[in-house]
Parts: sequence; C-alpha cells; structure tokens
Amino acid sequence: MSADSGSALSPESQDAPDAAARLVGTTGPVRIVGTGLLGSSIGLGLTTRGVDVVLADASPTAAALAQHMGAGRVAPASEPEPNLIVVAAPPDVTAAIIAHELAAHPRSIVTDVASVKGAVLDELRQLGADLTRYVGSHPLAGSERSGPTAGRGDLFAGRPWVITASSGSSPEAQMAVRTLAVDLGAVPLPMDAVEHDSAVALVSHVPQLVASLMAARLVEAPPAALDLAGQGLRDVTRIAASDPSLWVQILAANSVFVGATLRALREDLDDVVGALGELDQFRTQRDADPAKSGQPLAVLASAITDGNLGQARIPGKHGAPRHAFDVVVVIVPDEAGQLGRLFADTGAAGVNIEDFSLEHAPRQPVGLATLSVPVGSGPRLETALRAAGWVIAG
Amino acid sequence: MSADSGSALSPESQDAPDAAARLVGTTGPVRIVGTGLLGSSIGLGLTTRGVDVVLADASPTAAALAQHMGAGRVAPASEPEPNLIVVAAPPDVTAAIIAHELAAHPRSIVTDVASVKGAVLDELRQLGADLTRYVGSHPLAGSERSGPTAGRGDLFAGRPWVITASSGSSPEAQMAVRTLAVDLGAVPLPMDAVEHDSAVALVSHVPQLVASLMAARLVEAPPAALDLAGQGLRDVTRIAASDPSLWVQILAANSVFVGATLRALREDLDDVVGALGELDQFRTQRDADPAKSGQPLAVLASAITDGNLGQARIPGKHGAPRHAFDVVVVIVPDEAGQLGRLFADTGAAGVNIEDFSLEHAPRQPVGLATLSVPVGSGPRLETALRAAGWVIAG
Repeated sequence: MSADSGSALSPESQDAPDAAARLVGTTGPVRIVGTGLLGSSIGLGLTTRGVDVVLADASPTAAALAQHMGAGRVAPASEPEPNLIVVAAPPDVTAAIIAHELAAHPRSIVTDVASVKGAVLDELRQLGADLTRYVGSHPLAGSERSGPTAGRGDLFAGRPWVITASSGSSPEAQMAVRTLAVDLGAVPLPMDAVEHDSAVALVSHVPQLVASLMAARLVEAPPAALDLAGQGLRDVTRIAASDPSLWVQILAANSVFVGATLRALREDLDDVVGALGELDQFRTQRDADPAKSGQPLAVLASAITDGNLGQARIPGKHGAPRHAFDVVVVIVPDEAGQLGRLFADTGAAGVNIEDFSLEHAPRQPVGLATLSVPVGSGPRLETALRAAGWVIAG
Repeated sequence: MSADSGSALSPESQDAPDAAARLVGTTGPVRIVGTGLLGSSIGLGLTTRGVDVVLADASPTAAALAQHMGAGRVAPASEPEPNLIVVAAPPDVTAAIIAHELAAHPRSIVTDVASVKGAVLDELRQLGADLTRYVGSHPLAGSERSGPTAGRGDLFAGRPWVITASSGSSPEAQMAVRTLAVDLGAVPLPMDAVEHDSAVALVSHVPQLVASLMAARLVEAPPAALDLAGQGLRDVTRIAASDPSLWVQILAANSVFVGATLRALREDLDDVVGALGELDQFRTQRDADPAKSGQPLAVLASAITDGNLGQARIPGKHGAPRHAFDVVVVIVPDEAGQLGRLFADTGAAGVNIEDFSLEHAPRQPVGLATLSVPVGSGPRLETALRAAGWVIAG
C-alpha cells in the first residue's frame, strides 16, 4: 500500500502494520538493553519504521546477532543520549538494569517489558531510582522460540501492551511508552502494577502451573495409558513445554498473586477430592441411602459448570465474544495437498477463515479440520465444500 | 480405490477407511441400544459396510433421527435375535441396560462403550449377569457435538478402542467385540478394566477437572484481566466447555482412580503453594539470607521441569514421538484466501502437513500459522514459501 492510498483506508485498516508504518511517534535514538526475543523484536519494529535503535546486551554474541537481523546497531562510545531506553532483560535482573540506566542516562525515559511489574517497582523504590522517568510496561506477545533470531518486527501487532505508570511517573514518560506501543502496532492498556500482576497471575501464571502440574502426572504413566491420550490432554498440557528458568523467575516475582489464585484453586480441588472420596465410600456400602450421593455429585457438577461459565468468558480473536462464528467441520485425508485444496476451495467460496484447527489422533489416516467462519457464512461454505467433493462432519 | 487395486496397497493404507470397507467380520443383526453420538456412529459405520443394524433408544425421537441418518432401522417386534448388542447409553444406566439385554437375548453377545469399565463390571456382578457373553469396550472417539445427528461412520477411524474382557468373557465374545472395532477402522487395545480406568483417569478425567478448575477461577475475573488472555489460557481451558451431566457420571463412576491422581496432583500443588509462600516471606525480610530462597525456587523449577518431561511423553499424531517434525512458522494476513494460498503453495512444494495450528490474539490483524512437516522437509518448504512471497517467522 502506498502512502497516497491513505484516503481509501477503512477505519479497521488503520490498525494494519502498513498503515502504522506511515506515522511514527517515537524519536530515536532508542536504546534497547537485552536483545532476546522481545528486545530484538522491538528493535526490528522500530528500525523498520525508520527509528534509530542502539543495541546492548550482556552477551556480545546476542547483540551482534540482533544487529545482523536488522534490529539496530551496537552502540559506539560517542553515542548521543537516548530519548528512550527499553530494558528487555530477564525478570530477575530487570530492576537493577533499570536503576543503572536511569542513573547512567539522566535525561532518558526508561521502560521495561518484564512480565511482572510490582516486584520491579518495589525493587526500584528500594534502590532509590528516579521514578519520574520510569514507566513499566508488558507487551503480551511471545513465541515458542527465543533469542534474537526469533525476533519479528510485527510480534506486537494487535497484541495488548500493558502500561503501568506509577504515581511518580511523569506525563512525558507515560506518553513516550504509550507511543512506543502504538508505533509497534500494539494496543496500549493502562493498568496499575497490582492490577496487572493479579491479572497475569490469573490468565497466564496459574494456567502455566496448572498445565505443568497436570503434565508432571504423566512422567511415570504406563505407555499404554499414554496411547489413550487425545486432543484434550494435548491442549491442557501444551504450555507445559515452557522454559523452566524463565518461569521460575516469573513465578517468584509474582508469588503473592500466583499464590492467592492457586490457593483458591486448591480449595475447589479439595472440594472435588472430598466429593470423590464420599462417592468411593458410598459405593462400598451396599445398603447406602442413594439420596446421600446427591451432595458429592452436586460438588462435581458445580466444578464442571463453573468451568463452563469461566471458559465462556475468555474473549476470542479480535476481542469478539466466543461462539460468534459458524463452525464447519470437514474430514481431511492425510495426504499432501489436501489442506491446500480445502483452503483454496474455501477461498473460492469467498469465505474468510476466522480460526482453524486440525485434529488428529495417533495412527489416524484422516484429520478433522474445524473452520470457524463469520456468522451466516457457514451454510454457504458447507454447500460450496460439498460441491467440491468434501465430506462435512456432523 | 477399487477392490482390485488391493495388490498395490502399502501396509499403512490397509488402515484407510476405503480398504477397511472391503472386508467386514461382523455379522448382523447388530442391535444398538442408545442412539447418541457413539451409538449412531457405530450404526452408520456398520450400515455403510453392509451390516444389518437394529436401533433402540429410550427416546423414540432419537431412534427415529438415527434411522433417518442411515444408522440402521428401528426394530419391529418380530425381529430375529441379534448376534451382537452394543449398549451406547449414558454411563449411569449402562450396567442395568447390559443386564437387561443379556437376559432378554440369551444367545447374543453384549458390549458397551461407556468410558469407565470397572464400575460397570462391578454392577453387573452384583446383578448376577451372565458375564461369559459380555465384554466391555471403550472407543476413544468423540466430538464437540452430541446426539444422533452428530453421528459419523468414520468417527472411530484410526482411534484406539479399548477392549476390557473379564476373566469370565468367552473367547467368542472377545473376538466379536474386537471384530466390531476393527470393522469400524479402530485400533483394538486389550486392557483389563482396572488398567483402563486408571489410564483414562490420568489422560482424560483429571485433565477435564484441571481444565474446569482453572476455568472456574475466571468466573469472577475483572474483564480487564480477561483482555490479557492468550492462546495458552485458551488451550488449557478449552475442554472446560464440556457437558456437566455426562462428566458427573464419568467422574462418579471412576472416583477411585480420579481421586488418587487428583490427590497426587494436590501434593505437588501444595509444594508449589508452600514455595510461593516462602518466597513471599523472603521478600518482606530486607535482611534475609539470599541463599534461603534457593529451596523454594528449586521447588518451582521442579514443577516446571517435571511438566516438561511429562508433556514430552504424550504421543503425537500416528503414535510418532513428538518433535519428530520440522516446524515452519509463517505470518498470515487476516484476509480471505490467504490460508488457501499458503496451503496451495505448500502442496505445490510437495510437502505434506503433519500438523497445523493458527494462532491469533484479540484484535490482531495477522495470524501465525505453524506448519509441522516431515523431518528434513522444513528448509525446502521455507525456501519455497519465501519464493512465493511468504514471511517466515524466526
């Protein structure tokens, strides 16, 4: 898209990376300390948009790799002072680096991208850092890959970017960090540090632990039991593959809120364990009163029903309510090119795919493709796919 | 595929539905009691293969719908005795129906498809049923849909079908149930009832509860917290949308093994909660010995590391070890036809897609498509896709 096509833009397309590239609020140099996935992605995003980026990393190799990727340039000694410093270091050294950068660059605004905000702020206060020039932030973006070579300039496109100004943060500092987020295509979400840490405990840190604790039960499982695993187990435990060293830092830094949510979960778990025990006893008593099984059964029903209610509250893609899609399920033979044919046929029907999943079980010669499409377009897509020879499930 | 092409079949393709349709071991009439998803799918699969199927259901509407779907015919009074009876009823009435069918049809072999086997067998023993003609079974197949209209003749293709013969089961009865599973394209897995119930507690019932308990934490979450939800939370809680009435029956019937696994999980959870509490205390003591945080940090590291190990044990598609794929991650604009183009280009490169996922976050204008392809074909696919104009991530 060229700049002079701007008048034809629809409101939605102003969120697109191409449109965002036309208007950049951040002025360089921006100094990025830490060139892992997030640091190098910020560097790539800014460099692409014409902002001067200076890179630093405790590992010269990582910094050189990030420079090679196009994320910025490694700083010479005569560097002019940065306008903005982004600390993208491991969580457990973030506060110390922020304090150092604030002291070393007394006119620069500093932010960080650590995934826990309260502990960083507490530590900065203990260190006596100048908090007028510091505003914490947390872009909710990631990848299964890490390091500078995983960096992508569009990593933050459309993602939430939480901005946690403290009472001492200057308006200029807040605006600079918000502008950074918007420049990179993210959606800035102002929160205080406590609100943020409580939220990520609930939607990220506790789910990580729950997945890990479930997966840990499989360490000593008989192989025959694992043969019965289906997509449900795979989904519940997918994030259990996460990096332990990073997660120990995150969990330790957010121990208060993670602990509180886990204790609440444990209370519900205790209720379920208790109900199962009562049902065990009930079954061994031949002359037990059937009415007495009602109470433990109700506990189990509550656990599942509350799960229904909570799961339904998770926003879908584009913040849309869940279930705002038509769903078309298609049987796909496990052969090269079949998915290509399916998507070509879907595209030919003029239907956009909002979400997609492919379900397979061990030794299965076919897959079930689930296509989520805009409400109202499902029947049309089914007709088109049937006409093209596809088998629609259900 | 025509019957005379059989000599060209590779060993793998003998598992394909087309090949399975050529050779059918089950002789009718087969009586199916319960025409929900599983019963109607079995009926459809057998009818398609030329086996005479007679349908029964407590709900005449459900039976009529299943007949309309082609799953078999509703039985007239003068029906000849069935060779095989499949009880596909809700778990809490399964044993009573099996006992009734064994008594009403004294020459028929009876199986069921309930997802818990020990409780059914115990109840049959209490009822004094003729166990020589009964062999329990459990096809590990399902759908997010339920009822006769969700039935699919290929629901069991490539899926495990556990067969739990008891010490009293006759060889003829065992063979009839194994033949049924194979006729429907499933992979028969003999297990005893205890082994089965312990396995499904671990890979299905406890994961369901874990997902439900996690999702239940979201019921009272602030909306701003839910705005931070990502794919991790969505995956962990996906199956929390399951049907409460069915799951209460399953959990109650398998309370012993579900309880045992949950209690083991609770011990690990207690360790994590304890470690988080120690870290809280440690942070509030300014002069605390840093070495004292080592022990709780090690507990957190163990939880995540054990999760890594357990998750890595879950078999992938076709029973292949996980990570036996090359992974190619492609940035896909959120526009109609883009996925079609991606798959067409992948197909043109001659590369088969073993697994696929599409990752989106709220308000994101692009998606990340993760293509798992056979080991060694990743670099070739990346080159081909780049040449076709795609942006490869990482």
